[in-house]
Amino acid sequence: MRFHTRKWIKPQDLNPNGSLFGGRLLEWIDEEAALYAIIQLENPKTVTKYMSEIDFRSSAREGDIIEIGMDVVKFGRASLTLRCEVRNKMTRESIIVIDKIVMVSLDENGKSKPHGKTEIEYVKDRLKS
Amino acid sequence: MRFHTRKWIKPQDLNPNGSLFGGRLLEWIDEEAALYAIIQLENPKTVTKYMSEIDFRSSAREGDIIEIGMDVVKFGRASLTLRCEVRNKMTRESIIVIDKIVMVSLDENGKSKPHGKTEIEYVKDRLKS
Amino acid sequence: MRFHTRKWIKPQDLNPNGSLFGGRLLEWIDEEAALYAIIQLENPKTVTKYMSEIDFRSSAREGDIIEIGMDVVKFGRASLTLRCEVRNKMTRESIIVIDKIVMVSLDENGKSKPHGKTEIEYVKDRLKS
Amino acid sequence: MRFHTRKWIKPQDLNPNGSLFGGRLLEWIDEEAALYAIIQLENPKTVTKYMSEIDFRSSAREGDIIEIGMDVVKFGRASLTLRCEVRNKMTRESIIVIDKIVMVSLDENGKSKPHGKTEIEYVKDRLKS
Amino acid sequence: MRFHTRKWIKPQDLNPNGSLFGGRLLEWIDEEAALYAIIQLENPKTVTKYMSEIDFRSSAREGDIIEIGMDVVKFGRASLTLRCEVRNKMTRESIIVIDKIVMVSLDENGKSKPHGKTEIEYVKDRLKS
Amino acid sequence: MRFHTRKWIKPQDLNPNGSLFGGRLLEWIDEEAALYAIIQLENPKTVTKYMSEIDFRSSAREGDIIEIGMDVVKFGRASLTLRCEVRNKMTRESIIVIDKIVMVSLDENGKSKPHGKTEIEYVKDRLKS
Repeated sequence: MRFHTRKWIKPQDLNPNGSLFGGRLLEWIDEEAALYAIIQLENPKTVTKYMSEIDFRSSAREGDIIEIGMDVVKFGRASLTLRCEVRNKMTRESIIVIDKIVMVSLDENGKSKPHGKTEIEYVKDRLKS
Repeated sequence: MRFHTRKWIKPQDLNPNGSLFGGRLLEWIDEEAALYAIIQLENPKTVTKYMSEIDFRSSAREGDIIEIGMDVVKFGRASLTLRCEVRNKMTRESIIVIDKIVMVSLDENGKSKPHGKTEIEYVKDRLKS
Repeated sequence: MRFHTRKWIKPQDLNPNGSLFGGRLLEWIDEEAALYAIIQLENPKTVTKYMSEIDFRSSAREGDIIEIGMDVVKFGRASLTLRCEVRNKMTRESIIVIDKIVMVSLDENGKSKPHGKTEIEYVKDRLKS
Repeated sequence: MRFHTRKWIKPQDLNPNGSLFGGRLLEWIDEEAALYAIIQLENPKTVTKYMSEIDFRSSAREGDIIEIGMDVVKFGRASLTLRCEVRNKMTRESIIVIDKIVMVSLDENGKSKPHGKTEIEYVKDRLKS
Repeated sequence: MRFHTRKWIKPQDLNPNGSLFGGRLLEWIDEEAALYAIIQLENPKTVTKYMSEIDFRSSAREGDIIEIGMDVVKFGRASLTLRCEVRNKMTRESIIVIDKIVMVSLDENGKSKPHGKTEIEYVKDRLKS
Repeated sequence: MRFHTRKWIKPQDLNPNGSLFGGRLLEWIDEEAALYAIIQLENPKTVTKYMSEIDFRSSAREGDIIEIGMDVVKFGRASLTLRCEVRNKMTRESIIVIDKIVMVSLDENGKSKPHGKTEIEYVKDRLKS
């Protein structure tokens, strides 16, 4: 799994108990899943269709730095299934795990649209060709 | 299921495709689950521990009004299991359903703490007694 | 008066003195008035035209849960006059009261447009017919 | 009346009808009233107690620049009464007027506290002495 | 230099160390430069092209009031060069200084567009003529 | 240079001209510089002291995905000098470059504090030892 995006927990990310607000974390994960899928499928019209169960393993506190990891589970016909883990950057303690996030590629009319991808591609390779 | 909180979809709630950003919706649900559990358990230190799978049934668009419903599935010893549905206020079309959101009551040290509740209570009844 | 929308006071809602920022509260009230009027008048192009005097009765603190209540004062030709109260969900202490919020229904060109409504309607009844 | 703070209307400030969200405007006004009163009363613990009726005269659109003006109506014993007008910076069209915003100076315990001020002071004069 | 816009440092503006988040300050400066340039050049399509080095002289804390000053350094053909200083409103302590912020006037196609301005104008004089 | 954090340009990140708001971009860069320096210096109390000139090379539009890169220029006694580039993830077009961002490590009293670091370290190596 590759961890790209990092977040610094600031006051506006906390719940009233002083730990990371779970809703903020889910918001960050959904954005990361969306942009990861858009990069892979090369279709900006890609939406979240399903998330499997979410296990909040540990929390994070103000000033912590976390990193969000994504991995591909499966390329479907019009879908891409991702696995996500968020962990503390300094201690590597796992914060949240979601085994399946299903992203779907849509056409102009909002119907699912085959993306023709079968494996992870890197932007640098695309730009070379 | 009772639907209380309502949201008006504004530009800052949209993804770049012009529909409701899924991350914003999850943020709203997590807040609603937290405050619902705090009201029932009468413990402000109540956190989200688990969400079962999330099915994004339909989307919402700018200007739509949605309402967030919560229902109690089970009172545990230190936990409260909720069911959540979000729907379009005007058409009642279902937008998202989460069958189980497990909230846990914590003590000062962050350990789970029995809440002693076994059924839904209404604030007006508490205030009468 | 019916209280629907609830808010959980988080760090980003506070003023530098650690109590609920009045500006945030007014923002929440304006959104609730707008969506309440849109639901009743069935016109998404409904805007705030006037608020009567605002009495900040008590404040709220981080972690408090508040609820926002709306009631209809009068159906005008193109307007709807609402009454609003915000109170602490747990103690029912009144936080703010606004006796009149006048919402106006507009047409495509931004001119006031008669809405034809004379009494409160419930979405469930509309959907039945 | 002096107009200091200016705002540039951005997408996150709009309602779903594409004009300036009234709630955002009220948030800006409350912040400006608070900081104006804190500067005059030299007490950071100054809160909004009352606003007289609010007349939404015209709206603003994305890209507009507005300016917020404040004037002192009266110095009370522990209070300061302000008058506020917001207008379009380029056309000077009036957007909103609030004749009285009463700010109250508080002590450590949240009780009203006499501020000893009777007229507008300028920071540059304070710093000279 | 004229100081117009003022900000009240609230919890959502802090970094996890409890002082003003530098990123928020840069966001405020960029907005102020943009609206100042739009007012002078009378072209809403004016963008930030360049900032000279930024010296973070001192910080600000929760509850502080700051003011943002802008001055014109030079009118170019399609550009406007500004100087910016942010200071604490109450103590006049300098917080940040940027000697050159170059704003460029664009046409419909995003190309630089001569603005024909050579000196600072005041809106009140424009409206008189 | 390593590019970690990615952002998806959403409506709330735009200026009124429909392109990425420069102030938002500077906010993201400042956060990335802060967390990068905190990771390297292992001191959460690390602040931005200086940025060299900023060249806005190209813009980004709604729906674009950008990535933020950081590189170490120099380890000082209490400082860390970074170089930053932001580019479009899909096209690799450069959006902004800042040659020097000086971050300073502070002690409890806000005085500069030697960090003892002389080269880039990876968290995985630290955790092994």
